[in-house]
Amino acid sequence: MRAEIITVGTEILLGDIVNTNSRYLARELALLGIEVYYQGSVGDNEDRLLEAFGESLKRSDLVITTGGLGPTLDDITKEVAAKYFGQKMELNQKSWDEIREFMSKLDKSPTENNKRQAYFPKEATILKNNNGTAPGAIFKKDNKTIIVLPGPPREMVAMFEESVRPYLENLTEDILVSKTLRLYGIGESKLETELLDVIKGQTNPTVAPYASDMEVTLRITAKAKSSEEATKLIGPMEESIRTRVGKYIYGEGDTSLDEVVSKILVEKNLKIAVAESCTGGMVSASLINYPGISSVFMEGLITYSNEAKMERLGVKKETLDKFGAVSEETAIEMAQGVCKKFNTNVGVSTTGVAGPGGGTDEKPVGLVYIGVCINGKTKVKKLNLSGNRFKVRQRAAKEALNELRILLLEL
Amino acid sequence: MRAEIITVGTEILLGDIVNTNSRYLARELALLGIEVYYQGSVGDNEDRLLEAFGESLKRSDLVITTGGLGPTLDDITKEVAAKYFGQKMELNQKSWDEIREFMSKLDKSPTENNKRQAYFPKEATILKNNNGTAPGAIFKKDNKTIIVLPGPPREMVAMFEESVRPYLENLTEDILVSKTLRLYGIGESKLETELLDVIKGQTNPTVAPYASDMEVTLRITAKAKSSEEATKLIGPMEESIRTRVGKYIYGEGDTSLDEVVSKILVEKNLKIAVAESCTGGMVSASLINYPGISSVFMEGLITYSNEAKMERLGVKKETLDKFGAVSEETAIEMAQGVCKKFNTNVGVSTTGVAGPGGGTDEKPVGLVYIGVCINGKTKVKKLNLSGNRFKVRQRAAKEALNELRILLLEL
Repeated sequence: MRAEIITVGTEILLGDIVNTNSRYLARELALLGIEVYYQGSVGDNEDRLLEAFGESLKRSDLVITTGGLGPTLDDITKEVAAKYFGQKMELNQKSWDEIREFMSKLDKSPTENNKRQAYFPKEATILKNNNGTAPGAIFKKDNKTIIVLPGPPREMVAMFEESVRPYLENLTEDILVSKTLRLYGIGESKLETELLDVIKGQTNPTVAPYASDMEVTLRITAKAKSSEEATKLIGPMEESIRTRVGKYIYGEGDTSLDEVVSKILVEKNLKIAVAESCTGGMVSASLINYPGISSVFMEGLITYSNEAKMERLGVKKETLDKFGAVSEETAIEMAQGVCKKFNTNVGVSTTGVAGPGGGTDEKPVGLVYIGVCINGKTKVKKLNLSGNRFKVRQRAAKEALNELRILLLEL
Repeated sequence: MRAEIITVGTEILLGDIVNTNSRYLARELALLGIEVYYQGSVGDNEDRLLEAFGESLKRSDLVITTGGLGPTLDDITKEVAAKYFGQKMELNQKSWDEIREFMSKLDKSPTENNKRQAYFPKEATILKNNNGTAPGAIFKKDNKTIIVLPGPPREMVAMFEESVRPYLENLTEDILVSKTLRLYGIGESKLETELLDVIKGQTNPTVAPYASDMEVTLRITAKAKSSEEATKLIGPMEESIRTRVGKYIYGEGDTSLDEVVSKILVEKNLKIAVAESCTGGMVSASLINYPGISSVFMEGLITYSNEAKMERLGVKKETLDKFGAVSEETAIEMAQGVCKKFNTNVGVSTTGVAGPGGGTDEKPVGLVYIGVCINGKTKVKKLNLSGNRFKVRQRAAKEALNELRILLLEL
């Protein structure tokens, strides 16, 4: 099966918003084994939308649109889909009742405009919107299908998950099962090299790497007649991957480095305190994003100045004078100092040159030291990070979390 | 002039990455007054790319592509553009020298593959890439133009700014001048209502609102024969807007709330210390993103537990017992405590229920108190924020910065 995605809206054409809908739908369709060869964006314009439907359905069996289902007159996606298939719009009483019910829950009264949102051809399958007033719909004619979904991502994603994915799953005989592995500390190209022999020529399961800032995600997807069978196909592939790059894998599925590290601390009941210089609160903020962290997160200190490092953490004046604030020695004393001060099992410190100024030949912008003290033993990691001030700081915070994770696993 | 944007790459079609290139180019073209009616995405496939060029250039004068300029054999955008115009690829020695020079700076040796990146038709204008190995190019034939740019956003944006924007500016007679106003604390729909009479029916200058999380940006764009003339057109419009919603405008142009607040602190030489509970470091981290902050940022404390609030900040046990950690009273004592402890002019505190658990009828998830103490006078702000744990925390941190900004301006 072949599909195309058309996102409708002037805000996309003018670059006012980033098009996350196309990305979401593309990923979901790929997971369903549906091929997408084109994605397009058009404004709320009848002629151009009709032309886009024509071109897309010449090449594909299915078009999914987002946007243009609002109550105002410039929202025309549904009307154009009906016109394209030569179907007549009429009021759907059930849909109109649902819209009014939804609005009354929000203490709002529907306007005459909202009534437009309940008009559909009788041939269409209406998709209820549980998060907004715009219902979606499935239009069909002669083996060609147009599915229209609302534009706001929250409404679109919910409608896809509740109605569209089950509908599409029914159209394909095979079941697709995916497993996601999350890696930190290895670049995409190195990862591809390491896995070349494993993934080369593989068609079932497939392995797709996806790199974002400092992280790589590997998605293993298998196709079979049942989900048990598909899961079985994933097993050996995952094992081969783990054998080669297991040490970089920090988690599976929908998780994050923050969550993984925080969970280990909570599970092992290890009290932690954090002393940050260049990252200025980012490490603590990441840990505190984990809801259960309060049982182990004792305190965080942002000791940006030399005075603060000495007074709050007991970093020695001689250390600062001799080695400087950005040094292995200072990072160690900061991590040990924060442990001691708050009587915790774990202390983490960061100190570095975030830029844009302040760099020297000896200590360039991007030089960061991470200190991790666990039960009295301290390790320090030296980093040379690239990017602007924010990126250097963000990367340093992530490196600190990963370093902590690795050392916690060695316990 | 009419243009289309085609982003090339399997990673977009599979939904592995969000397409930020289209958004960037769309916005820049809109600013240049160039109309964009379609955006498309295609894979690295010769037939489909040829077809896409054909369709786009039937409708438009100019196509800008991103992606597919890499050294490997699946990168074919440039080759397909040449084929579409019937032009022959040949090695461009100057470009090849530049690629080798770029790589030698990174201590890398070019591979035979890299040589492909220096092939262009002699009719093309080559665009040097100062941030990577893939040069771009401008292809022209019979009043139709294809501009090919590299896929990595950093390289693409730099090349657009250095070479493409000046080129396009030369093609249009009118000069466009834009001014961006940044607002905080007002929603997009309320803003539109407030400005209805000012922007209704306006064609020169135009006013475009763009909402992102908790912020709205207003872009005023004027078209004229000279930039002085265009700037003159913007003046009265800006004044009308400021009369109506001036109190929400925190800055102009390329700035951020972090930067604006930090600048005021530095300029007024007001020493600041921060005590965070629910935001857990986010307020400090935002301030520290400003490079000059070290002269005034004294210390930050993440006092997540009641003990930390008492021991570090001197919050009274009775206050915590009687009113709770999430209360006006605690926020006030935290802000005053951190000022006193570090002997600063300004103290900021946050305390709230970030969720997902921990909410009660009386103190629901999203309840946050912000305390700001300036020269001994303390104000507190109560917020009811929506969103998941991360969003509540992020919004609370932004609210704290904005509250601080407003109070600093009253000094």
